[in-house]
Amino acid sequence: MTKRDYMKLAVELASAAGGQTSPNPQVGCVIVKDGRVAGVGTHLKAGDKHAERYALEMAGAQASGADMYVTLEPCSHHGRTPPCADAVIEAGISRVFTASSDPDPRVSGRGIKKLLEAGIYVETGIMKEKADELNRRFFHYVTTRHPYVTLKMAASIDGKTATISGESKWITGPASRLDGHRLRHEHDAILVGIETVLADDPELTVRLPEGGIDPIRVVLDNELRFPLRANMLQASGRTIIFTSERGDKDKEKALKAAGAEVIRLSTFRVEPETVLEKLGSEGIGSLLIEGGGTVLDSFVRTGFFQEAVLYQAPILIGGRDAVSAIGGSGIERLSDCPRLILKQVEQLEQDVKLTYRNEVQNECSPEL
Amino acid sequence: MTKRDYMKLAVELASAAGGQTSPNPQVGCVIVKDGRVAGVGTHLKAGDKHAERYALEMAGAQASGADMYVTLEPCSHHGRTPPCADAVIEAGISRVFTASSDPDPRVSGRGIKKLLEAGIYVETGIMKEKADELNRRFFHYVTTRHPYVTLKMAASIDGKTATISGESKWITGPASRLDGHRLRHEHDAILVGIETVLADDPELTVRLPEGGIDPIRVVLDNELRFPLRANMLQASGRTIIFTSERGDKDKEKALKAAGAEVIRLSTFRVEPETVLEKLGSEGIGSLLIEGGGTVLDSFVRTGFFQEAVLYQAPILIGGRDAVSAIGGSGIERLSDCPRLILKQVEQLEQDVKLTYRNEVQNECSPEL
Repeated sequence: MTKRDYMKLAVELASAAGGQTSPNPQVGCVIVKDGRVAGVGTHLKAGDKHAERYALEMAGAQASGADMYVTLEPCSHHGRTPPCADAVIEAGISRVFTASSDPDPRVSGRGIKKLLEAGIYVETGIMKEKADELNRRFFHYVTTRHPYVTLKMAASIDGKTATISGESKWITGPASRLDGHRLRHEHDAILVGIETVLADDPELTVRLPEGGIDPIRVVLDNELRFPLRANMLQASGRTIIFTSERGDKDKEKALKAAGAEVIRLSTFRVEPETVLEKLGSEGIGSLLIEGGGTVLDSFVRTGFFQEAVLYQAPILIGGRDAVSAIGGSGIERLSDCPRLILKQVEQLEQDVKLTYRNEVQNECSPEL
Repeated sequence: MTKRDYMKLAVELASAAGGQTSPNPQVGCVIVKDGRVAGVGTHLKAGDKHAERYALEMAGAQASGADMYVTLEPCSHHGRTPPCADAVIEAGISRVFTASSDPDPRVSGRGIKKLLEAGIYVETGIMKEKADELNRRFFHYVTTRHPYVTLKMAASIDGKTATISGESKWITGPASRLDGHRLRHEHDAILVGIETVLADDPELTVRLPEGGIDPIRVVLDNELRFPLRANMLQASGRTIIFTSERGDKDKEKALKAAGAEVIRLSTFRVEPETVLEKLGSEGIGSLLIEGGGTVLDSFVRTGFFQEAVLYQAPILIGGRDAVSAIGGSGIERLSDCPRLILKQVEQLEQDVKLTYRNEVQNECSPEL
């Protein structure tokens, strides 16, 4: 086993806890003594022990003189748990290998510095790309304090989300719809527009055979037309409704009484930036935008998104007046349209899932 | 080298002549004597020698007692050249391996029968799937007498072909546009609607660094609005304009004088099926439909197409009123929409090319 092999195991440990650690990052840790694995750990959820702690407990006395592989620089500050760097030093670890650095510029490097000062050999950046990828949502959130935004679309080959008569169930197949529920599980919150609530009355819960975590539900509703008897209010968990100065005050009271949280903005229209600021301040680190077309358009036009996922069904629908995935007023000039980076193409039964990132192009080739 | 290896070489020889053999199939041939390649051949163009002839000439006296690998069953009838089966027998070939059978039910198996009667060992169906794929357009044409129809679309992730202000140059990148020219080269004819002619005044020629064959240009024009000074009439080669009973007679004369061929149909509207019948009777075996949206819709709605190619650019455009790839009146019910089979996903610089077939699903997995 090489350094890369051990780090790969640590990355896989981190990866397994996807969707359950927010607002904390996913972290995996492997301790190796004399060529044998002596301890493994993964961070399970916020408030629980860090990955390094689990691995150190498992290793016990074996930790002395051992190597530690950890996907993120060990923390150096007192949070809900004492600093991991101190525990690593106390346990007598002799070499530490890390993948990602702490993205928060105020703390980045301090954990490493502490280890070096204690005479521990430190090597950073092993499998950094994979580890950074895993925590891309977390890293975005801690550096911007806005949730990481993923746009979700499901459409035909010719970009339609419904036929001219409005039929839309189902364009994509069962495997895509299941994958869509996994996307929900991976995000802290889901956002839809009021038109989607009025048309579909969705629950926005995670329905997976293996179970999953229901995200917080967020609805943009300028005029507070949200129905008091909406399915969303029957489901457990939070429902946050953003409204504008135009939202009726009595309706606001009634919705609050029915269990919704209403955030009233003093503007004519609810704008993406304000929504992201508010959600960020509530500790929501990732947001899945499921539509409809007008809401998706507002996030595309303002550029407030990091990722776009398209589930494309092998069907042709046609029709000049058939609805397509992104509606609204659109962007006039091609040069103003966001150009994304294709990150992954996957086949889900008969459908294709295309994952794009809204970032400056780098040298990585997509996994085609 | 196994039988499969030799047949693979024969398939590659056939493949190299893509786009230049119509209305004939692409055929490759390899002759092997005592474990050594003794002759190779490929069919270059209609009227020229068949692949078997070239390989036999190259092998000369070595053909006696040799093995022949040929991608299509040798012909048994007198066409523009004498039957290949006779030449194979005369040359003393002892074993013949074939991939595809002759698709024409009137001749299928006769070449094989002739060889067997002469005492030659025959084995069929080696790499049949690859060889059938290569001649899918030819096979469709000889069995239906309609050209094989490919729909071409180029759009954004959200299915748009232009912004709300009509800007469309360029959504896809240079590699996709170059590939689009290769598609033109591979087809006998290109078809567009009159709206595309009036909006873009295209030449519809093949512009490739390596050169290429310009397809016949076909335009659907119910009211004969085709401009006498259109670029298409300046380019070399045929331009066929289909019009309805509504097309002006004087305009028809003027267009003919300007070099166009005008086919007048006695119906109110030019329908895909009639167009395909006429083009088929002219020996046109494959047709690329480049748009616009109304024309693509008419072929989708009537089901008269075999393949759909989407060049998808990594861009989000948005806008409820932005034009998407397939327009027209569309299909009302999802259950009536054609469901296709994904055959291939390719990356062309930043774009993705998705190739779909309109056929009953088979067991082949797509080349993802």
